[in-house]
Amino acid sequence: MAKPDATNIPFKAAVVGGTGYGGAELIRSLLNHPHVALNRVSSIDAVDEPLEAVHRNLTHTGLTFEKIPLAEAASGVDVIFLGLPHKVSCTLAPEFETLSAKVIDLSGDFRLRDAEKYRIYYGQEHPYPDQLQGRWVFGLPELYREEIRQADRVASPGCFATSIVLGLLPLAKAGYLSGPVQTVAATGSSGSGAYAQAGTHHPLRANNLKPYKVLNHQHTPEIHQVLTDAIRRNGHDSTFFLYFAPVSAPLPRGILATSFIRVPSDCTAADVDLIFKEYYADAQFVRPLGSGDRNAEVVAVKGSMWVDLSWKLSEPDSEGRQLTVSTALDNLVKGGAGQAMQSMNLMLGLPEGEGIDAPALWP
Amino acid sequence: MAKPDATNIPFKAAVVGGTGYGGAELIRSLLNHPHVALNRVSSIDAVDEPLEAVHRNLTHTGLTFEKIPLAEAASGVDVIFLGLPHKVSCTLAPEFETLSAKVIDLSGDFRLRDAEKYRIYYGQEHPYPDQLQGRWVFGLPELYREEIRQADRVASPGCFATSIVLGLLPLAKAGYLSGPVQTVAATGSSGSGAYAQAGTHHPLRANNLKPYKVLNHQHTPEIHQVLTDAIRRNGHDSTFFLYFAPVSAPLPRGILATSFIRVPSDCTAADVDLIFKEYYADAQFVRPLGSGDRNAEVVAVKGSMWVDLSWKLSEPDSEGRQLTVSTALDNLVKGGAGQAMQSMNLMLGLPEGEGIDAPALWP
Amino acid sequence: MAKPDATNIPFKAAVVGGTGYGGAELIRSLLNHPHVALNRVSSIDAVDEPLEAVHRNLTHTGLTFEKIPLAEAASGVDVIFLGLPHKVSCTLAPEFETLSAKVIDLSGDFRLRDAEKYRIYYGQEHPYPDQLQGRWVFGLPELYREEIRQADRVASPGCFATSIVLGLLPLAKAGYLSGPVQTVAATGSSGSGAYAQAGTHHPLRANNLKPYKVLNHQHTPEIHQVLTDAIRRNGHDSTFFLYFAPVSAPLPRGILATSFIRVPSDCTAADVDLIFKEYYADAQFVRPLGSGDRNAEVVAVKGSMWVDLSWKLSEPDSEGRQLTVSTALDNLVKGGAGQAMQSMNLMLGLPEGEGIDAPALWP
Amino acid sequence: MAKPDATNIPFKAAVVGGTGYGGAELIRSLLNHPHVALNRVSSIDAVDEPLEAVHRNLTHTGLTFEKIPLAEAASGVDVIFLGLPHKVSCTLAPEFETLSAKVIDLSGDFRLRDAEKYRIYYGQEHPYPDQLQGRWVFGLPELYREEIRQADRVASPGCFATSIVLGLLPLAKAGYLSGPVQTVAATGSSGSGAYAQAGTHHPLRANNLKPYKVLNHQHTPEIHQVLTDAIRRNGHDSTFFLYFAPVSAPLPRGILATSFIRVPSDCTAADVDLIFKEYYADAQFVRPLGSGDRNAEVVAVKGSMWVDLSWKLSEPDSEGRQLTVSTALDNLVKGGAGQAMQSMNLMLGLPEGEGIDAPALWP
Repeated sequence: MAKPDATNIPFKAAVVGGTGYGGAELIRSLLNHPHVALNRVSSIDAVDEPLEAVHRNLTHTGLTFEKIPLAEAASGVDVIFLGLPHKVSCTLAPEFETLSAKVIDLSGDFRLRDAEKYRIYYGQEHPYPDQLQGRWVFGLPELYREEIRQADRVASPGCFATSIVLGLLPLAKAGYLSGPVQTVAATGSSGSGAYAQAGTHHPLRANNLKPYKVLNHQHTPEIHQVLTDAIRRNGHDSTFFLYFAPVSAPLPRGILATSFIRVPSDCTAADVDLIFKEYYADAQFVRPLGSGDRNAEVVAVKGSMWVDLSWKLSEPDSEGRQLTVSTALDNLVKGGAGQAMQSMNLMLGLPEGEGIDAPALWP
Repeated sequence: MAKPDATNIPFKAAVVGGTGYGGAELIRSLLNHPHVALNRVSSIDAVDEPLEAVHRNLTHTGLTFEKIPLAEAASGVDVIFLGLPHKVSCTLAPEFETLSAKVIDLSGDFRLRDAEKYRIYYGQEHPYPDQLQGRWVFGLPELYREEIRQADRVASPGCFATSIVLGLLPLAKAGYLSGPVQTVAATGSSGSGAYAQAGTHHPLRANNLKPYKVLNHQHTPEIHQVLTDAIRRNGHDSTFFLYFAPVSAPLPRGILATSFIRVPSDCTAADVDLIFKEYYADAQFVRPLGSGDRNAEVVAVKGSMWVDLSWKLSEPDSEGRQLTVSTALDNLVKGGAGQAMQSMNLMLGLPEGEGIDAPALWP
Repeated sequence: MAKPDATNIPFKAAVVGGTGYGGAELIRSLLNHPHVALNRVSSIDAVDEPLEAVHRNLTHTGLTFEKIPLAEAASGVDVIFLGLPHKVSCTLAPEFETLSAKVIDLSGDFRLRDAEKYRIYYGQEHPYPDQLQGRWVFGLPELYREEIRQADRVASPGCFATSIVLGLLPLAKAGYLSGPVQTVAATGSSGSGAYAQAGTHHPLRANNLKPYKVLNHQHTPEIHQVLTDAIRRNGHDSTFFLYFAPVSAPLPRGILATSFIRVPSDCTAADVDLIFKEYYADAQFVRPLGSGDRNAEVVAVKGSMWVDLSWKLSEPDSEGRQLTVSTALDNLVKGGAGQAMQSMNLMLGLPEGEGIDAPALWP
Repeated sequence: MAKPDATNIPFKAAVVGGTGYGGAELIRSLLNHPHVALNRVSSIDAVDEPLEAVHRNLTHTGLTFEKIPLAEAASGVDVIFLGLPHKVSCTLAPEFETLSAKVIDLSGDFRLRDAEKYRIYYGQEHPYPDQLQGRWVFGLPELYREEIRQADRVASPGCFATSIVLGLLPLAKAGYLSGPVQTVAATGSSGSGAYAQAGTHHPLRANNLKPYKVLNHQHTPEIHQVLTDAIRRNGHDSTFFLYFAPVSAPLPRGILATSFIRVPSDCTAADVDLIFKEYYADAQFVRPLGSGDRNAEVVAVKGSMWVDLSWKLSEPDSEGRQLTVSTALDNLVKGGAGQAMQSMNLMLGLPEGEGIDAPALWP
């Protein structure tokens, strides 16, 4: 690629755990980035193989997967990305404290502040619960942009959380998030990772739609936590309950989340339009499409950082009105590695969209 | 096929409007049926071509598409199926009255009892509103089996209505259907019909998820009508509001509907299990899978009459509990032509599942 | 299903190795068959689970997967089907000889007559090479119908062999199969079996086309053997060389094979039409479509026994003419379990298409 | 996007006919290009709508589709791209001559030198056959790089031609292209364009494989012309005959072409490896993968300029050896608009890969 000589690039990054799809997307983005060079990639699979042997989209990267300790991977770099599984990232917490590099974790291990919720949803005690007490910033720029700029530890959220939260943040700010909220989010198969398994076996996945972990998905508590932050920051005291039904859908990339929120009868369509459009007026990567004929759809955002939002408001029923919000994004980009890159840009003082702002392919 | 000689088959059927996907599925089912012979197929497209020129799955049917008047198509047959578009079926109402054949219509033209709702959702006045006053039976055997047995006019429901209603019927009977109910139903592309259009253009449809007609789908009022019947028949007086978000999904066949219903805190998981399992204890084609690990999924039912149901009940929140119900079915079989065949069997006094009870392919 | 009471069904069958996709299709077909009852299903996976727990298309079969010896599975049945992996079936050869049941094997273990070819393509010596000397009939009715009627051992061919052979058989008979023949056959993912693996991981398979085992596929020698039989039976002495490039395609079911054959300049399009149409004039499940606008295509045959054939002949070049033949079939039905059922019907003296002659779905 | 202010970009381009998929890809690429600004986009559809209304991947382009004459679209720009249909581009030939801008045409109208072949394959006389006599350079840099650098008219080849030619060029140079050559190329649905039609109707396309225009595709003669150029340029006098079977495959983007070439028995695998690796040693976007386990596959190149090549050589048969070559590329990028951009870079004296060298997404 027509990238400047790495010796002139001011920042360096390493990826720890680079053989998965999160790693693939981090590597691709870093190889494209004008001001951050990819220094090393560690892994426990495909050790000593070139990156392009696993991520077959790549060419002549000059890098191999290295089985090296965290400290060695982090040596000489400004930022490390962790592409490790849940429950593995957290075991490294003490080692992070010895590093000068900033750390961005793509797992769920440092997102929750409530260790009890971690225990319930991840099935084990968190080994370093103190780390959950403010040490990490939740890497969602649309709510925590300033905190991310100052952070040296970012817990970058995943695809379901990003899609659902971005659809509801403006309503949290406006004071409309209260009581039961229902969400169906259909996801592509790359969200299940790079290793073959029953749920991503092509003969069954290709023509299927299947709910899973209904009302019990492990990302539910982080969605609740972030939206409650947004409610409180804006001076509201409401409580809401998220009921989330994930669905496996037959496409490789992308999520479509549809949420249902009850609002008072005196809330008008114009009110809702204003709430969304004002909230995202300055957003780098969110397109509030409106309540007309054009809806959020995966094909317009797959492969890119863009998030599309559309909404509809019902006529009043006997108890108020029903509002629906649909969000579409790419689960591996804005819902994964691309969002981690966005946090990196903020943490390094670079333009927020640098290296990650290419539009999707069409079609 | 190893079918008995048609001269020994006691009943005859005709298909009016046979070039669409509903027609294709009717024809396939009738060619398989041991006691009903397919007599003629009329159409305005592909006139004089053999059926297998359009429905390329078929072989040597010996039948052609014929451009003939309704009366001629109906001559000598026991039942006619209408595979015509919405707003076309209804124009034929006076002609039906001159026929001795029973009529099963697959369009939406005779499903609603409220002519005003027809006007709103179909965009025109119904030309024969008297026909909506009890002349037609709604062809959903799981609620109207006895009426269908006696009927000579059946308005057979479509895919969204069948999938959503079957998920909610047991709750209507139990008195739990009240207040706002939210549904997301994702559908395969064959639901849009046999003619190429922007929404089914493969380059965009193949990797996409897209909402459409959110809170405004034309099948919403018939779902409300049927479920209200079920509420009233069981002695309840509750009112509910259906908020329905359809989603275009990238598979050719199948629907997955997920509905959210609020229930009181004292409703238990065991109560819900009993409600569903009792309701469908004798159902020919409904499998209430339960609230465990196995969920309703399209791949298990595509190409067949089977409908799978699964559900989950939340812990109590401050206002009650949230119940979700997922339904999977094939939009052209139980959600279309197969269900019309089921009504035909009932109307002719044949076993309800005759000719349509083959399981799905796996995978 | 509306099947007669099993006690009145004259024949019984067992499936040995029933958890794979071949097993699924055998079970589905046997449950549909009017004159053969499915008695037992053995397996080493999912032991004691009901069939419908693995093959989720099925309902209330009343049967479980049983971990039982071959002799027990075969006890009291007329025919056993082996749905075992290559290299496993062959180890059971001595046990078959103790059974009174007829045996139909779906693996590649008894198809070749040349033990050396087995060694080369399957990577090991055949443990019972004597079994390859005429003990088994190759289960392709379009060439070996009479032998199958008399057989008690049938080695049923798989998807690639069936698709390529059926495209070339008429040319072998006509004496046109000579010299190099080139074939590309693209296959659906179900051909790789029911267990998740890298090659069927949905995120990569869904939008991919990939050659594999080019010029080296293990089914090449059986194709050569069968077509050489056809050449010799018809009094020709030509030699041909098959160059076969398999391709993984992004669909669950189906194969499209395209073969290139050189023919003399004086061979005309009318000659070719006649060769194909005569050869398949009485075929139960082969449709020779011709050389016009309609081509063989997977969507018309998936889920059914039908095989579609189309062809094109070039103008003469300096060395002769080029003929291409395309064949489409369902890899699990006519290219797998359905064809084994067809052999069973012949072996039991039943009508050849009984229980397996339903047309494909459309679409 | 983080693109420099257009006022500082040295070159300007216009797209004529911008609403198709070729237009979409040109626009996306130009918006990403560091040294060429997209000035205007003309069309006859969607007139006055913003680009992002049609190409929904785009955001805030500030440009609309304009219904303007060619001269106006070309005014003030250095290069114009024609994204017009076959048989439309050619009608504009006299107008091109009045322009100072360089012209790159993506249609087939100026690729052939033989007006008679144009008449046969495009079904009409070429209106300006003199234009076919050397006025245009065929825009395939792997053969005509120097001519493209000097050109002011480039006829940019399409997807089938690029994929087949790149697989055979090294063999043409080596003198191995002779006699009958057979090719199967399976293509994604975006190759059929942006308008819905029967062949891209999702319900049928999604699970289908279908040959079309077998031995009769309109791109056959340009493939023959270019490869004959390569044969002659390298001092060989052989004649070859291309027999090409296109196949519609169920994926949106990508082509996999597999060609069969006869070579002498004394040609070794090492010879073939050397032929391919030397030919593409300096290629910007071609990866000769070799004859081992890794094959060319669409998923590694979709969405990018990269072309992957793999090959296999048979043991000798009685007449020589069979060589197969597989090529994978993205039909809209290297097989379409991206390749036109590559020519533009060469014509403007820019680095050949500028603005178009991002790797594919993985997965």
